[in-house]
Amino acid sequence: MTNSAPRRGFENKEFEKRLEKIQRIILGLELDGILFSSESEIRYFTGFFTQFWQSPTRPWFAFIPVGKAPIAIIPSIGERLMRDCFVEEVYTWSSPSGNYDGINFLLEIMSKFSKKNSRIGLMMGNETNFRAPLNDIQKILLDMERQRSFIDVTKEIQNLKMIKSSAEVEKIRYVCHLASKAFETLPNWVSVDMPLSEVFRQFKIRALSLGIDEVSYLVGAAGKGGYFDIIAPPTERPIGIGDILMLDTGCAWDGYFCDFDRNFSIGPVSSEAKNAHEILNKAIDQASNSIRPGSTKAKDLFNLMDSILRPNFNDTEIPSGKVGRYGHGLGMQLTEPPSHAEWDETILETGMVLTLEPSITYGKDNFLMVAEENILVLDKGVEFLSQRCGAKLQKIT
Amino acid sequence: MTNSAPRRGFENKEFEKRLEKIQRIILGLELDGILFSSESEIRYFTGFFTQFWQSPTRPWFAFIPVGKAPIAIIPSIGERLMRDCFVEEVYTWSSPSGNYDGINFLLEIMSKFSKKNSRIGLMMGNETNFRAPLNDIQKILLDMERQRSFIDVTKEIQNLKMIKSSAEVEKIRYVCHLASKAFETLPNWVSVDMPLSEVFRQFKIRALSLGIDEVSYLVGAAGKGGYFDIIAPPTERPIGIGDILMLDTGCAWDGYFCDFDRNFSIGPVSSEAKNAHEILNKAIDQASNSIRPGSTKAKDLFNLMDSILRPNFNDTEIPSGKVGRYGHGLGMQLTEPPSHAEWDETILETGMVLTLEPSITYGKDNFLMVAEENILVLDKGVEFLSQRCGAKLQKIT
Repeated sequence: MTNSAPRRGFENKEFEKRLEKIQRIILGLELDGILFSSESEIRYFTGFFTQFWQSPTRPWFAFIPVGKAPIAIIPSIGERLMRDCFVEEVYTWSSPSGNYDGINFLLEIMSKFSKKNSRIGLMMGNETNFRAPLNDIQKILLDMERQRSFIDVTKEIQNLKMIKSSAEVEKIRYVCHLASKAFETLPNWVSVDMPLSEVFRQFKIRALSLGIDEVSYLVGAAGKGGYFDIIAPPTERPIGIGDILMLDTGCAWDGYFCDFDRNFSIGPVSSEAKNAHEILNKAIDQASNSIRPGSTKAKDLFNLMDSILRPNFNDTEIPSGKVGRYGHGLGMQLTEPPSHAEWDETILETGMVLTLEPSITYGKDNFLMVAEENILVLDKGVEFLSQRCGAKLQKIT
Repeated sequence: MTNSAPRRGFENKEFEKRLEKIQRIILGLELDGILFSSESEIRYFTGFFTQFWQSPTRPWFAFIPVGKAPIAIIPSIGERLMRDCFVEEVYTWSSPSGNYDGINFLLEIMSKFSKKNSRIGLMMGNETNFRAPLNDIQKILLDMERQRSFIDVTKEIQNLKMIKSSAEVEKIRYVCHLASKAFETLPNWVSVDMPLSEVFRQFKIRALSLGIDEVSYLVGAAGKGGYFDIIAPPTERPIGIGDILMLDTGCAWDGYFCDFDRNFSIGPVSSEAKNAHEILNKAIDQASNSIRPGSTKAKDLFNLMDSILRPNFNDTEIPSGKVGRYGHGLGMQLTEPPSHAEWDETILETGMVLTLEPSITYGKDNFLMVAEENILVLDKGVEFLSQRCGAKLQKIT
């Protein structure tokens, strides 16, 4: 394993393989094609990579017809970039263009590639979103009900994307490596009296300096004895002796994410806090050791971690009730299926990239503590992509 | 006008005013309430501010019943943060939770606040997105069709949000000021042979160092004589003498965006490029001078800028056909309504924050050039929030 930057983008054969896999889904479900509207799927199958998705103004579509490469149906502002992507054809309209922006155009193009009574796949299930206004969605669904039937392909597409190729793993491994390095520097520059907002700012600057492309996601908390909330923006409150400081980051490199956190004690802290950190790491240890690809399920990880954490809760409500799970998939999105939760029957397979993210409450104040690492499922065992922080709570100053 | 940081967040009265305005919409349309599912609207009406929206896993809802403050119906992971917000009540469920995550719960809570045959407002039009899976949307709409009717409130809510309060303007003014400073430093550190990707990285680091919270959006291009694409990620190609370099950034401070760009010549460039930059700035000048709040329409800005730009195109296809418009609204989102486009009848009003973003093609290669500034519409005239770059193309080295 090397720590130098992998190549950016993908070779064509990566997209050919993805196409082959989705065509198998299309054939298996006897579809005439699958329609996508979301950043992650359009990027996955075409390689179309741009921050422009942050503007909510324009809808974008890709339709993959049976036996063909993706057809892009997009605003003309994206034409040049899309033409360099893995697409069969690019159809554009001048967008924005008032009501039902591009929808009639989309239906017109789709009817070229899918005749009456055809069966169209759509992602309709959990953790998906059809990126278009409700009015437009209704128009599309109405058209489909009249002329076509639509079939939910959420599970099939999610299962396909869950298994990462070696080129994808390289990018995630690299961003995990860079973020680990950024966390490593933290004790050198965090000091007592530094406002939490400044800790965030400095972390971002250092992560970028180390080679990360985007510090897309950075949440955290600091508080005397512990913290309660893990999704709030940073306050201006200065870090103080006796604090537990936690940063949780989703950094991206070439469009692939890491997602892990680190806890630090600022000076001496309670044995309960140290103990909580040890238990969390024990849960991570045992969960990572338990994985047998092809048989272990996401819910097994939940149950195992829960059995370690639960006897140590001092709260009536278990933390997993608050966060809903003890980890998840990871890749082009900060969070992807599966969920390490009681209800998730997903069987873990070689090539999946997962977070292990147990949480616990401790002390009479019911502080929350979350630990998180990123792993790759191997044929035998796992590889930690994030540099393991270890059971001992790291002390600063 | 001071350049020091405004206070973060908003006073309660800001949310009271927003509530008053939406309650007027609710009464005017004889609604029983309005249901929201998207980050921007939930933040606008409750103050709920977190990066956690980047995880696509969980749906979040806010329902504003007639005569009441917002009711939050959210995953329990957000409970603590939401309880500090401007809400009447917070209802939570443990999410993620398998199929139809939270939807039955949402419908149950909504039925507490809206009886049978009630009229529910939803944002269904352009530039909106109901942030939930299609299956869930269908379930919600079906329930509504059976028990309630739903009314599209896109225009009403967009019109409300278009007019910025002075506290909102302060945040946008501040982030525009910081981004202007970041651009000001650029000639000091960009050098020939620096890869474009490194220019991007350095810009982000410097913007953060100056006080910006997030460099959420940074696109740009550089090319000998000019550039063609304005949404691609940066390449590793080194900047060279004779290049036109353009960076376009949406930086955020306390959740509010700037969105403007700068063009630079690296050493000497063609007179056509310089001329293009002058024409773009002439269009910005005249557009900004033309605004009379209460009578000028967004499409008037398009037509005026087009009349200046069109005689100078050497392409058969006008650039606005590619980008679709010559600017847009700005605020909590990188792009908001209105659009300076032929079809947009929005009347400009005091308190609107807009981008002026003309584009032009030039030279035998049909290079594209885009200039962009951010303005606030005043009772009389406008205030430039971005520090105007001027007609002269700035030269580096």
